[in-house]
Amino acid sequence: MTSKHQVLCMGNAIVDIIARVDDQFLETHGRVKASMMLVDAETSAALYAAMPPAIERSGGSAGNTAAGIASFGGTVGYIGKIHDDQLGTVFRHDIQAAGVSFDTVAASEGAPTATSMILLTPDSQRTMNTFLGACVELTPDDILAEDAGDADVLYVEGYLWDTPSMKASVLKAFDMAIAAGNKVSLSLSDSFCVDRFRDEFVDLVENKVDILFANEDEIKALYQTDTFEEAVDKLRPHVQIAALTRSEKGSVIVSKDGEITVGAFPATVDDTTGAGDLFAAGFLYGYTNGRSLEDCAKLGGIAAAEVISHLGARPEVNLQSLAAEKLGS
Amino acid sequence: MTSKHQVLCMGNAIVDIIARVDDQFLETHGRVKASMMLVDAETSAALYAAMPPAIERSGGSAGNTAAGIASFGGTVGYIGKIHDDQLGTVFRHDIQAAGVSFDTVAASEGAPTATSMILLTPDSQRTMNTFLGACVELTPDDILAEDAGDADVLYVEGYLWDTPSMKASVLKAFDMAIAAGNKVSLSLSDSFCVDRFRDEFVDLVENKVDILFANEDEIKALYQTDTFEEAVDKLRPHVQIAALTRSEKGSVIVSKDGEITVGAFPATVDDTTGAGDLFAAGFLYGYTNGRSLEDCAKLGGIAAAEVISHLGARPEVNLQSLAAEKLGS
Repeated sequence: MTSKHQVLCMGNAIVDIIARVDDQFLETHGRVKASMMLVDAETSAALYAAMPPAIERSGGSAGNTAAGIASFGGTVGYIGKIHDDQLGTVFRHDIQAAGVSFDTVAASEGAPTATSMILLTPDSQRTMNTFLGACVELTPDDILAEDAGDADVLYVEGYLWDTPSMKASVLKAFDMAIAAGNKVSLSLSDSFCVDRFRDEFVDLVENKVDILFANEDEIKALYQTDTFEEAVDKLRPHVQIAALTRSEKGSVIVSKDGEITVGAFPATVDDTTGAGDLFAAGFLYGYTNGRSLEDCAKLGGIAAAEVISHLGARPEVNLQSLAAEKLGS
Repeated sequence: MTSKHQVLCMGNAIVDIIARVDDQFLETHGRVKASMMLVDAETSAALYAAMPPAIERSGGSAGNTAAGIASFGGTVGYIGKIHDDQLGTVFRHDIQAAGVSFDTVAASEGAPTATSMILLTPDSQRTMNTFLGACVELTPDDILAEDAGDADVLYVEGYLWDTPSMKASVLKAFDMAIAAGNKVSLSLSDSFCVDRFRDEFVDLVENKVDILFANEDEIKALYQTDTFEEAVDKLRPHVQIAALTRSEKGSVIVSKDGEITVGAFPATVDDTTGAGDLFAAGFLYGYTNGRSLEDCAKLGGIAAAEVISHLGARPEVNLQSLAAEKLGS
């Protein structure tokens, strides 16, 4: 029987506020380039006041992945918490208009819809400053068996570990997916995020996760190694599938069958936001359609190359057509 | 003595919601290409539900002009009504971060901050669907003598005629500017807008306005002529300065001293939104800095060429630097 969704994505529902700044701006405001830092409402307001004119665009790591999978033509759902406000309306519109099922009830009390101020430097790196807002209102009650127990793959972003209620929601969803015999997938999200939750992530990776997504910094942070190769050595015995991204070096897929290295697709980089999210989209679309791991990695690379070629972390072209053009399939 | 502002811009404070669609979408939803149509809250919600994923960016005709003047280095203020909500915060942030004084008190009751759904077709034309929202809360109480009576030029968009309270606010500002011996400037905004208020606009142009901005369609609509030349013949006896824009044909500046034609600056057109607004920005910056009418038109053309080369109606580069590069001054 076909599952309700090929992939169910779960994450922080965020509207990005994107502006170009110089390196001095990061320094003045104590930002660490290319990281995601959580900010409280007050810090968020102060940073916004200092920020140049911006544009707003729906984001959120797993939300970007969901939009990507839909653009490939996959059936995909999303779980995440918005507030019943204007930016929540924007988030809901954009993800639904992308073709993603999104039924999580908006919070009517508490903080506003989350925003992430994304500072783009001339080197195309993005530095994210996220006010979690309504995301923290996610509770296990938002996890429905009809969704979490009925997707070929449940995909979760590591950022959800940042509050106990969000984490409890993930663990409930994991249990439902595992009980239904489906696959669970985790993105490590960010090396600082890995530093915050290393022991839990190691335990998850070694005991629950079927498909792990991480970039080079994140996998090194997980195993506290100096080199990528050492991290892979530590990871190898424990993992079903790990899709490890290395920016312009492409990706390395580690599985019980060995390792596959796939080169990056060429791109004129404008804004690296969403590269990992869209890699996961292509990979999971391929995986849930029975493609080889090499093809999965290629589909991930194609989607990542598209999203870094423009401002914002959601695809701007139909990824199914783009993949057909690039791969002839 | 120096005025508080070289230019004070007054208009509908709007956040644009921008998406790319095909011509069929316009047809299905009964939109008239390249026009601005007002929509009520219900129509706005229905159209939004049908619209593809979008990005949000501050807009509003006179707001775009104000941001442009600031980018040239001019001193500029803005009057327009937002609601005290998230999109109002976005609008206020963006215009202030651009360097524009904006002190109009946000409405705490009534409709939300105005949005305009901008549908971009593959021919780079924009079709705008505006829900006026909080804009209709603008009243003459928002017009302060310290602003409206202390700007070298008061610049107003024709769209403000759409409600009696907005219009009364403009007329109060006009009176203050004229009483102070300053210049008043009007943009005709849109040919449908001209159709709605032709008699009032003709009266204003002939009796109050010092600097008129219009594109070819608008000036033909004002005088109900078939050709641009006939419209100019009817306009000529009544006008101090009229800056008439003709897209790729450039602009024609009509004044008591005769007519000047200035060619368009080359541009790779992506999104025509804001072309007229930014032309006005460059022209008024030049005018309030004592430049020749020909230079004013060139500065307008440079700003218009920049804004149509990307998505959104606010400049993305420093226009002062761009003008220096293009004109050597």
